[in-house]
Amino acid sequence: MKMPDTRDLRAIGIDFGGTSVKIGALSDILTDGGAEPIVLETAAYGSVDDLIGAIAGSVTDISRRHQKMIAVGCGVPGLVDFERGYVHTLTNVPGWDGIALREILEQETGLPVIVDNDANCMAYAEWRHGAALGCSNVVALTLGTGIGGGLIIDGKLYRGASFAAGEIGQMSIDYQGRTGPYGLPGILEGYMGNRQISELAAARLHDRPEPSGGWTPRAVAELAVQGDPVACHIWAEVADWLGSLLASTAWLLNPDAFVIGGGVANAADLLFKPLEEKIRGSVSSVISDGLRILPAHFGDEAGIVGSAAQAIDTVLAGAHQEPGN
Amino acid sequence: MKMPDTRDLRAIGIDFGGTSVKIGALSDILTDGGAEPIVLETAAYGSVDDLIGAIAGSVTDISRRHQKMIAVGCGVPGLVDFERGYVHTLTNVPGWDGIALREILEQETGLPVIVDNDANCMAYAEWRHGAALGCSNVVALTLGTGIGGGLIIDGKLYRGASFAAGEIGQMSIDYQGRTGPYGLPGILEGYMGNRQISELAAARLHDRPEPSGGWTPRAVAELAVQGDPVACHIWAEVADWLGSLLASTAWLLNPDAFVIGGGVANAADLLFKPLEEKIRGSVSSVISDGLRILPAHFGDEAGIVGSAAQAIDTVLAGAHQEPGN
Repeated sequence: MKMPDTRDLRAIGIDFGGTSVKIGALSDILTDGGAEPIVLETAAYGSVDDLIGAIAGSVTDISRRHQKMIAVGCGVPGLVDFERGYVHTLTNVPGWDGIALREILEQETGLPVIVDNDANCMAYAEWRHGAALGCSNVVALTLGTGIGGGLIIDGKLYRGASFAAGEIGQMSIDYQGRTGPYGLPGILEGYMGNRQISELAAARLHDRPEPSGGWTPRAVAELAVQGDPVACHIWAEVADWLGSLLASTAWLLNPDAFVIGGGVANAADLLFKPLEEKIRGSVSSVISDGLRILPAHFGDEAGIVGSAAQAIDTVLAGAHQEPGN
Repeated sequence: MKMPDTRDLRAIGIDFGGTSVKIGALSDILTDGGAEPIVLETAAYGSVDDLIGAIAGSVTDISRRHQKMIAVGCGVPGLVDFERGYVHTLTNVPGWDGIALREILEQETGLPVIVDNDANCMAYAEWRHGAALGCSNVVALTLGTGIGGGLIIDGKLYRGASFAAGEIGQMSIDYQGRTGPYGLPGILEGYMGNRQISELAAARLHDRPEPSGGWTPRAVAELAVQGDPVACHIWAEVADWLGSLLASTAWLLNPDAFVIGGGVANAADLLFKPLEEKIRGSVSSVISDGLRILPAHFGDEAGIVGSAAQAIDTVLAGAHQEPGN
């Protein structure tokens, strides 16, 4: 797909989360002082149809406030058939199995729609408008409840043979480790999801005063910043696990850049400094010399930016297929 | 790069090995009854220049016996700048550091030349003329002295940001394993290169009569075929190591096919059956359902086929650059 020369922003992005859906105009987010996204609480809607109706209404509302919108993107936390815009299943969102989301949204909004996995949208956002602007080969990952990833290969989002590529959290760092949900031992998510880090902290930091919200990656980071050796050690371990996997990924894909976002990435220097040392100390200089290891530019808004940017690039490249084709 | 519609075979391939160089016409290898490749023993030539001169002479000899040749490909066991056709360094071939191989060969033969890593050539051979014909996303690997790999992504050989992608043998299967040559612990090559398997066999099979050539992966395979439980266990371990890494790779790249070649792969069913079980038992059905796990079609001739096929596709697509550009 050839990228349009100009960065046209006439698109709306929809970001599905576990508990809410955010809808916003790409131009609003990329422009200082633009309107905030509309937030719909999932629990407030009795059915999938009701929620989709409310989303379509929000798209119409946003369209009215802007110059003519020409595309809508939708990022969802789960497995998607990108070509058909069909949602196989959404992690943590009950009732969302087998939904022809693109078709429904196109009928309700009258606009061309693309639907993709949220980690792919995050990778796209960072590549087209964020930290990895100008790079051709990018491995983007989000560290949160789970660990998601998206790949830009030779200047194009790579989705794999059945749209399931980029599942970095399911890759193994120890062939003898604990067996993961799909049968593979030692998967990264089993070490450094938010819950795993919190449990590790609760076990190892039990003699420190427990933070008001309980032990979270952020609480461990705060303690580590104050110099607590146990908290620092937890972050060093996280960097070692993640660094091992990303070094392997660098040997396989020789990317221009890793882009790392999500909650755990907020530990900033605590994570990035040892992580960078680990990766660079584990690959050939041929791979390391041109490699950039970057914190994500976008936070919560990555889903809207990435889905909207994908939608508009797809439409402008003439690559959008009519529903049913 | 758009693939030509017809499979034009008017190219010559050069395959650099550790001790010999083989030169052959693509049409001879792909046609029953074609001429055997010319083999030059590296040790018989006093200098790199002498060897290159002999290679160019062989190219001319082969050209005379065929319809007009239009391209020459060259696969080398080491790190290459594909764009410039420049050999950084060859593993196990002394004196081959910093050689502008493409430029020299183009001057000597008068034909357009491409130079690439041998694992990339193997992947290309299997994709264009071998086991993975018709696939768009392929992970190819060769199991031998070391473990090399090449990637076909979205119908194109993927070389990475600095032409170093596909180094599957340098990827880790255990973040706490023994440190590899580039600093990464637990790399696959440290477990299952030919030497490692031979050492494992010598240690575990010391009470069996030693084969005349000493313990080799092939000797272990022969013993395992006879039902020797220790030899079988060694192959099960190999399948577990490799399967763990390939399952991780499947989660990352969601390929259409893995293609596995090289000496260790000759163990055939002993390796492929448990390997296939391990991979399919470690990934989502979305990834597993369409995934093929294939033995390589080509053996020793992969280097000639892959380099020649790359050369002719590059020339016919008009993507070959004049030397010095």
